[in-house]
Amino acid sequence: MDKGRILLSVTGFNPQRWHELLSAQREVVLAPDGPADPSITYAVVWKQPPNILARLPNLRAVFSIGAGVDHLFNDPGLPEAPIVRVVADNLAGHMTDYIVWRVMDHHRQGMLYRSQQNKKIWHEPPQRAAEDISVGIMGLGQLGRAAARALLALGFRVNGWGRTGRPMEGVETFGGEAGLVPFLNATDILVVLLPLTPATRGIVNYKVLRQLRRANGLGGAVLINAGRGRLQKDADILRALDDGTLKEASLDVFEVEPLPKTSPLWAHPRVFVTPHAAATSDPAHLVAPMLAQMDAFERGEPLRNVVDRQMQY
Amino acid sequence: MDKGRILLSVTGFNPQRWHELLSAQREVVLAPDGPADPSITYAVVWKQPPNILARLPNLRAVFSIGAGVDHLFNDPGLPEAPIVRVVADNLAGHMTDYIVWRVMDHHRQGMLYRSQQNKKIWHEPPQRAAEDISVGIMGLGQLGRAAARALLALGFRVNGWGRTGRPMEGVETFGGEAGLVPFLNATDILVVLLPLTPATRGIVNYKVLRQLRRANGLGGAVLINAGRGRLQKDADILRALDDGTLKEASLDVFEVEPLPKTSPLWAHPRVFVTPHAAATSDPAHLVAPMLAQMDAFERGEPLRNVVDRQMQY
Repeated sequence: MDKGRILLSVTGFNPQRWHELLSAQREVVLAPDGPADPSITYAVVWKQPPNILARLPNLRAVFSIGAGVDHLFNDPGLPEAPIVRVVADNLAGHMTDYIVWRVMDHHRQGMLYRSQQNKKIWHEPPQRAAEDISVGIMGLGQLGRAAARALLALGFRVNGWGRTGRPMEGVETFGGEAGLVPFLNATDILVVLLPLTPATRGIVNYKVLRQLRRANGLGGAVLINAGRGRLQKDADILRALDDGTLKEASLDVFEVEPLPKTSPLWAHPRVFVTPHAAATSDPAHLVAPMLAQMDAFERGEPLRNVVDRQMQY
Repeated sequence: MDKGRILLSVTGFNPQRWHELLSAQREVVLAPDGPADPSITYAVVWKQPPNILARLPNLRAVFSIGAGVDHLFNDPGLPEAPIVRVVADNLAGHMTDYIVWRVMDHHRQGMLYRSQQNKKIWHEPPQRAAEDISVGIMGLGQLGRAAARALLALGFRVNGWGRTGRPMEGVETFGGEAGLVPFLNATDILVVLLPLTPATRGIVNYKVLRQLRRANGLGGAVLINAGRGRLQKDADILRALDDGTLKEASLDVFEVEPLPKTSPLWAHPRVFVTPHAAATSDPAHLVAPMLAQMDAFERGEPLRNVVDRQMQY
């Protein structure tokens, strides 16, 4: 196969660095030439404009920037070409940093200490050990497993929930719908790293939060969502915070992003907001594996990390 | 040897739980009987009243509650009996939690994000990887080594400085006065876990902070002191924060504790204050090893973790 051109199509951020790094090895364009462009063989996309990919008759594969691919399935003109998820140690490293950071801040009562500092209060509340806290990770894919390993090394107990409940050393895993309630009942800090699919949309709702363990020394259950905003119901999280179902939450994602200024989540004293920044997609780390996949594919090797169209992840 | 009585002498907190747990195996008193009390063979102390230990002619050993023993050396009537430092995995676990928590909060720009949230700003600053940050630990004893292992597992680069510069796998170690400047020059986040001795008093001063690396992606050097307050000069830390030598600080200890309400550290926007709470001395974990040491000593075994009187740690 010859080296076709790459379409780089993103919305929501400036793709200049991606363009520079991809261009070092292949010809890159930001739009197809005309209503049908046979010269383009790969697309590298993030929330591409609808139907743009339908104009590429010789498209061999679509590469998604960012760990999630749900943005692709919103495109009514999504072609049949295989979709490749971005996979890079760097992405898992950033996400693990974020999860460890947020788990530690809730575990070590950062919100309480900051509030005490504001009032110049010198007071030491009872201190829990990591081994007394169960962190439950929804979504034990590449990112979830990396976070689980880091939390285990720090002494936390770790539960995992996924579609299949595939086992992982040191982690108590639960699978499918039947495993969900037992998983939640054994979890003090819920970490959400699921892909967004028709099966997971809205899964972080009041009924689910209600099943979290609240009786241990943590003083209430905690939610950390670093997956996708539409996994959660913002209003249900607020309800759960306000009736004591949840003690605190760290949210990196929201039903609507950027989070509207009118959202009560911004000013809630027990919510920590980050702007979908848990794990940045750094082109310096991600472009090289993408180009390597294209080269390997052209040598006849199969694509890796191809999305299952049925499962949508 | 017979089982003598234990003197439990603490100031600054209620020793009730210690009394209960020690009493389960030995007779415990809170004060000597009269000006000289030959019935007492062990003392378990935290900031004991001066000269109280001098009234115990048959004292065999002094056990310090808490990792530091500097409080003992303030007693002009400190007897010659060996002083035993508390050592428990639990204490190292709590301290490691604290260090990882504070390193992650600075690394992941918690102060910036909290300030943005207050203003409802949705903005993602550049994101660093843990491998780009060098954490330098002053004091590679039991606690420092446990923290170093956890930080290495999370991908940080780790430097260590101590009196001898004893090597540790994965850590670049520096020793003694000659090693101090090279250690600081290679450090982005300084973690202080030194014992307080005549040699370390005031070591965290402006001149030392000035040597920290400030040119990397972190946007300035960071100080975390979880050792002892009198290792640092509070005024020097404020000066370093205000002239840009330090970007941020997390302080668990202070020259005077509780931190006076008049201290500008309380309200400084780039200082995080905790009330000497990094690692709680939990009697549920610490009493059993103390009683086991007493039993072993009476069987003729040597005491472990005995303080060097010359070094004072």
